[in-house]
Amino acid sequence: MARVVIVGAGMMGSALAWPLADAGHTVTLIGTPLDGEVVDAVRRGEPHPKLGLRLPSAATAAPPTELEAACRGADAIAVGVSSAGIPWAASALAGKLRPSLPLFMITKGLVWNGHALCCLPDALRDALPDAARLGVEPVGVAGPCIAGELARGAETMVVLTGRDPGAVERVRALLAGKLYHPRASADVIGVEICAALKNAYALGIALPIGMNEARGGSTGSIGLHNLESAIFAQAVREMARVVQLAGGDPGSAYGLAGVGDLDVTCNGGRTGRFGRQLGLGVGRDRAIAALAGATLECLEILAVMRPALSAWRASGALGAGELPLLDHLAAVALDDETPAPPIGSFFA
Amino acid sequence: MARVVIVGAGMMGSALAWPLADAGHTVTLIGTPLDGEVVDAVRRGEPHPKLGLRLPSAATAAPPTELEAACRGADAIAVGVSSAGIPWAASALAGKLRPSLPLFMITKGLVWNGHALCCLPDALRDALPDAARLGVEPVGVAGPCIAGELARGAETMVVLTGRDPGAVERVRALLAGKLYHPRASADVIGVEICAALKNAYALGIALPIGMNEARGGSTGSIGLHNLESAIFAQAVREMARVVQLAGGDPGSAYGLAGVGDLDVTCNGGRTGRFGRQLGLGVGRDRAIAALAGATLECLEILAVMRPALSAWRASGALGAGELPLLDHLAAVALDDETPAPPIGSFFA
Repeated sequence: MARVVIVGAGMMGSALAWPLADAGHTVTLIGTPLDGEVVDAVRRGEPHPKLGLRLPSAATAAPPTELEAACRGADAIAVGVSSAGIPWAASALAGKLRPSLPLFMITKGLVWNGHALCCLPDALRDALPDAARLGVEPVGVAGPCIAGELARGAETMVVLTGRDPGAVERVRALLAGKLYHPRASADVIGVEICAALKNAYALGIALPIGMNEARGGSTGSIGLHNLESAIFAQAVREMARVVQLAGGDPGSAYGLAGVGDLDVTCNGGRTGRFGRQLGLGVGRDRAIAALAGATLECLEILAVMRPALSAWRASGALGAGELPLLDHLAAVALDDETPAPPIGSFFA
Repeated sequence: MARVVIVGAGMMGSALAWPLADAGHTVTLIGTPLDGEVVDAVRRGEPHPKLGLRLPSAATAAPPTELEAACRGADAIAVGVSSAGIPWAASALAGKLRPSLPLFMITKGLVWNGHALCCLPDALRDALPDAARLGVEPVGVAGPCIAGELARGAETMVVLTGRDPGAVERVRALLAGKLYHPRASADVIGVEICAALKNAYALGIALPIGMNEARGGSTGSIGLHNLESAIFAQAVREMARVVQLAGGDPGSAYGLAGVGDLDVTCNGGRTGRFGRQLGLGVGRDRAIAALAGATLECLEILAVMRPALSAWRASGALGAGELPLLDHLAAVALDDETPAPPIGSFFA
């Protein structure tokens, strides 16, 4: 039995409480300064407002002021903040980390630093003060996982990746249980890029759903599924290419982190709803408004990828006609262009 | 403008009439001896009974007795019979083929000949009499394509594969149009194995849909999608492994023929409905009965794969624990075992 602190009380961070409790651990869920309502509700014994479920009995919630005390006796720390919260998390955790203390994170995103595409486990480590960083290698958790299913006891397989194989193994041993099946990968860059890009590409796979409705088609087995699946296959191909450009293993795009996570993300989440809206042709602003304030990771990722693609093209590393789908998705979602997936340039 | 004869008036064979007509060709759809009702209906000016649409004006239908006359002036021949109809098609076409005459086929399936897994373009060629076979290399059409969408003008990308690159290019030039986008692949074995196996694996991806209903879950964004997507990723991994064992290029499993076709097959067709029934736990016989006589390619493919897996394992080419998903699908669909996808042995 271990004592695990989860920092960040959003959907996925909180959902980690279930496999941890199943594995016999106790959990302290520390909200960020933005999670006040969640923490208050859980402390009143109410269901977690975002998951609609009461936390497992082995889990409690607390505000950020209790992070210090919670970490004092912790056997592992999980980071579940939003990508924008990484600097805050690094600052809050500085001094509480040590090389032998398992540290894992479910936050997904990418950073373009002007010359390379960086992933968030590295960004978290690099955001730590020098003294706190020594020997700390965060382990990323990726792969197909809908938080609401994890919290409801659905069987789930994820990928753990990190630069220290020993740290990955410690996290795997901590998390593995009857319903939760973590697999290890050494390809940090590849796994994390797929985990981030899948949001952009899931948007693309949802475009034909809206396009079909806009032309009067009904949902069902006859729609624009042929186009959807061509986009799906092209998305996997482009993810592999981006991973390769960033120095990762293209094979990650063909496994749980790529194909698997892309597939699960197409199952009715906010990215798919946003893509459907864009496919309906309502335009970017109304599509965003229709999502009523939901975080749209796809927009963040497309914005990060833009300077990366420009730099790779300027250097000759990437051809002008490569990644036509990603170019189109950026044009639609960032520049409000009319959705018209460029199938003629797929697999060219 | 070319004159194209399509042999076999089933869903997919008939649907080829649309891209061919779009590309400016005329089509004669020759029914097999089993297609009498379809041919009669089309000749009476009624909609194609299986597609629910009238054929394009450039297409006519005729019974098998008119095959000889139709082929006399043909510029290309397409084979759209069922896999069981390949010997009949070979016999009917013997003497009407020549090396320069484009010959393509949408029939999918595999044959285990006791020592190797063979695909249907090769089986068709081998079924021709010696004199008729010389220089004839059928081109297979694979990839994500729902026939009913193709016939309704949905954009579609497919893969063409064959042992003669010149033959593949002739077929590509014949078929390519504004809405229909064929891509060429030299990996006949890999593409054709994926095209056949996708039916078996799509069955597996549908199991959790029924399992979720059986435990009282509703359809929607919270179900057993995490399990479905783990199965999807494992399916792609296993398809790549089978392709490798058969001497093909595992990369085909990661593209249109593998990932793309698997994705489209999960969109509500009969394989998915059969998998859902099995997932509900009604048992094999009732699941087959619920499909009311629909052809279940997944059962054919699982039956063909069984002796292949046994032989590969006996020779040591395949480990006992490899392909756990395919083993489970055969146990469920052929032996009536209880569905319980062995996620613990995925990506092991």
